[in-house]
Amino acid sequence: MSFVDVCLRGCAQVMFQNNPLCGAFFLLAIIWGAWAEGRPEVAVGAVLATVIATATGYVLHLDRTALRSGLCGYNGTLLGVALPTFLLSNAAMWVCLVLGAIVSTISMLTISRMLKTWKVAALTAPFVFTTWFFLLATYSFSRIHSAGLPEPAIPHQFSMTVTGELTLTGFGASTLNGIAQVFLLPSAISGVLILIGLFLSSRGAGAFALVGSLLSVAAADLLGAPDVEVHNGLFAFSGVLTAVALGDAFNRPSWRVLAYAVIGVLFTVVTQGALNTLLEPVGIPTLTMPFVLASWLFLVPNQELMPDYRR
Amino acid sequence: MSFVDVCLRGCAQVMFQNNPLCGAFFLLAIIWGAWAEGRPEVAVGAVLATVIATATGYVLHLDRTALRSGLCGYNGTLLGVALPTFLLSNAAMWVCLVLGAIVSTISMLTISRMLKTWKVAALTAPFVFTTWFFLLATYSFSRIHSAGLPEPAIPHQFSMTVTGELTLTGFGASTLNGIAQVFLLPSAISGVLILIGLFLSSRGAGAFALVGSLLSVAAADLLGAPDVEVHNGLFAFSGVLTAVALGDAFNRPSWRVLAYAVIGVLFTVVTQGALNTLLEPVGIPTLTMPFVLASWLFLVPNQELMPDYRR
Amino acid sequence: MSFVDVCLRGCAQVMFQNNPLCGAFFLLAIIWGAWAEGRPEVAVGAVLATVIATATGYVLHLDRTALRSGLCGYNGTLLGVALPTFLLSNAAMWVCLVLGAIVSTISMLTISRMLKTWKVAALTAPFVFTTWFFLLATYSFSRIHSAGLPEPAIPHQFSMTVTGELTLTGFGASTLNGIAQVFLLPSAISGVLILIGLFLSSRGAGAFALVGSLLSVAAADLLGAPDVEVHNGLFAFSGVLTAVALGDAFNRPSWRVLAYAVIGVLFTVVTQGALNTLLEPVGIPTLTMPFVLASWLFLVPNQELMPDYRR
Repeated sequence: MSFVDVCLRGCAQVMFQNNPLCGAFFLLAIIWGAWAEGRPEVAVGAVLATVIATATGYVLHLDRTALRSGLCGYNGTLLGVALPTFLLSNAAMWVCLVLGAIVSTISMLTISRMLKTWKVAALTAPFVFTTWFFLLATYSFSRIHSAGLPEPAIPHQFSMTVTGELTLTGFGASTLNGIAQVFLLPSAISGVLILIGLFLSSRGAGAFALVGSLLSVAAADLLGAPDVEVHNGLFAFSGVLTAVALGDAFNRPSWRVLAYAVIGVLFTVVTQGALNTLLEPVGIPTLTMPFVLASWLFLVPNQELMPDYRR
Repeated sequence: MSFVDVCLRGCAQVMFQNNPLCGAFFLLAIIWGAWAEGRPEVAVGAVLATVIATATGYVLHLDRTALRSGLCGYNGTLLGVALPTFLLSNAAMWVCLVLGAIVSTISMLTISRMLKTWKVAALTAPFVFTTWFFLLATYSFSRIHSAGLPEPAIPHQFSMTVTGELTLTGFGASTLNGIAQVFLLPSAISGVLILIGLFLSSRGAGAFALVGSLLSVAAADLLGAPDVEVHNGLFAFSGVLTAVALGDAFNRPSWRVLAYAVIGVLFTVVTQGALNTLLEPVGIPTLTMPFVLASWLFLVPNQELMPDYRR
Repeated sequence: MSFVDVCLRGCAQVMFQNNPLCGAFFLLAIIWGAWAEGRPEVAVGAVLATVIATATGYVLHLDRTALRSGLCGYNGTLLGVALPTFLLSNAAMWVCLVLGAIVSTISMLTISRMLKTWKVAALTAPFVFTTWFFLLATYSFSRIHSAGLPEPAIPHQFSMTVTGELTLTGFGASTLNGIAQVFLLPSAISGVLILIGLFLSSRGAGAFALVGSLLSVAAADLLGAPDVEVHNGLFAFSGVLTAVALGDAFNRPSWRVLAYAVIGVLFTVVTQGALNTLLEPVGIPTLTMPFVLASWLFLVPNQELMPDYRR
């Protein structure tokens, strides 16, 4: 039972929560999203990789407190969703998933240790780097096949004639999709399940997730991002995580913190656009890197800037 | 008055000077360059972003000494020149400029804090990273339009039949353009104004800037860089900064320091060529990154190598 | 004589050995490989760059112990092989080689100093970064010509119809080529010479090199890497280095260490595929970066994970 508890906490840590019930809702969101898309392998991958990443932590005799709060699992969870989402689920993919889950825990150790120098957390960087390596390798190995990776291409300027007026309903759906896309799920219902899990664990986290998504959707729309991508939440998931990180996970809410988080979310949207361009020639998605970069940028000086609000 | 003084020192810090008069000459060079090109928005952007970046430092209650010496302003100054140079000046661009100026100060804090571990300065890295993000985002948002970004392309080998004999006049103009390009200005007169400002503040800095530009132009020409780019100073501006950094700003001049700075400048020219290639597929300019990389490389071991000459 | 000894130790340090005899065998392997390919400039470059890189260490008055164990030479050795391998050997190339050898020692100082924060070694990163800069610059300067760089291109998915059954002989040749490719040499005889040198210096190192190459060839073949590249050892050289680093150079062999090294080698193969893709648009080879990245990843937490086996 204790191992299940730790794995659920691992799911919850994707959004900085140390709460098994919250993790259960996140897992439910993944299962729903996978089922709705007709891709059960996504849910299987998430569970399997969470278990392996967590077990790796036990085998390596890691620090008990970190282990028990799920900090060895969340990168596995995300990798376990990402590989079956972007790759054909053949034998080679499952081998990569197992290897990737083990490596995600080692990456977690390495990145955490390096960032301890500046007292910031690894966030989801171990997931992003590990997954990127497998996705990039797709183009070098014939047994690993893309099943949804963006086609590599040279970026080009584009101009849209009309951005359809953003209706209130459309806005709501985009906001929920943005929250679901934290787990790479294109499903508003998954977004609702994630929100419930978050609110059960921390009202601040839930509120900041909602505000972060809303703000990101609005900003991306105003800057003229492609409508479909905005609607699918692809410009919002990083902002969701930045908002929760800056507003609730590492600071206690206050007006000063709110202002700082808002600027952080706006810059996250720009970073999302930037990384979309940067990765276009090599045909891989940004995953949550825009959140990671923007949040590191805003968290490193956080100690000095927010001494009174720091958690 | 004190705030104006701090903003002028911000301009001067682009070339490591803590001197408002020097900053005034730099600002004059920007205004002249903008006027000569018929793009007043470049000068307006520079002033606005310097003010906002500096004000952000005050709002965040930063260290007074750093603040007063202009260390919160110079990245804003450069970003304020760069965005209107490369982007169409519509509403979205000005919003980006304001957001970018705020973020440039936060980047400055983050990068400085990280680099303190190895006792090196942030140099212009906060400007480069922040600006790159906005320029890359151009290709993802339809309301941000390029107005001078290089077209994204796959690099290819090229061979030139003739490099016209480099005349003494051509050499002089290229050298002055190289100095002006530190502020992205393609104007020899701006180069002269910058040199006057530098010499007023520090004769060593002025001399090293001149030697750095001359040496870079010669090296780029000998390696066979495209004539037009050499003439416009595009292979020299980073060398100018490397020369001032290694020769005068962080060391006291000596023969040993001079030799070290010369090698640093030569490697900066190679780095300029390398980064031109690296960024070609994503269609953004190197900005002063070649200087930043080469100078970090030569400054990290500086303490041990130049104990007697270290400032 | 002492200087020759130090230079030979420099060659040996490419594979973490502090042993002049081992270095002599490595040098012999380079000479043989260069002669077999009809490119004597590769051997000349290796010797010249090792001498210059080592001499730079003396001129800079570096720490005697590090200097004498050859730690200033090995990045020069590799750069001295790489530049004549990938570039046309004209005057500009030799100037770059001399400058590059000097810079490789400065890079070594900088990267070592930065990584000391996390108690890991620079590995071959100084060689990789310095060489990459010169190779990238090829596309910007007409006097530096490619002679074997990969053509820049957009990556694409590929599928192979048949991987010919891997015969035992083919397997053996691939394994030896993998070892030779550590020095960029496509020659099984060079591989044998390197192995002899290694075994003379350390049986553990020799065994791990062999196992690392074998395992990498098998893994790359199973994942469906292109047959020719697998045969030429292009998916194995990084695994060779990872195996020696994790298994023998930084840990004392044990079952736990062996398991860790095996996972490290497998991830190195994935990293090799990933970096092949990542660098395709800019037309430069990965060099030993897959080894460097994978080994840093596995070495940073090594202290905590292998306290009993740590050298």
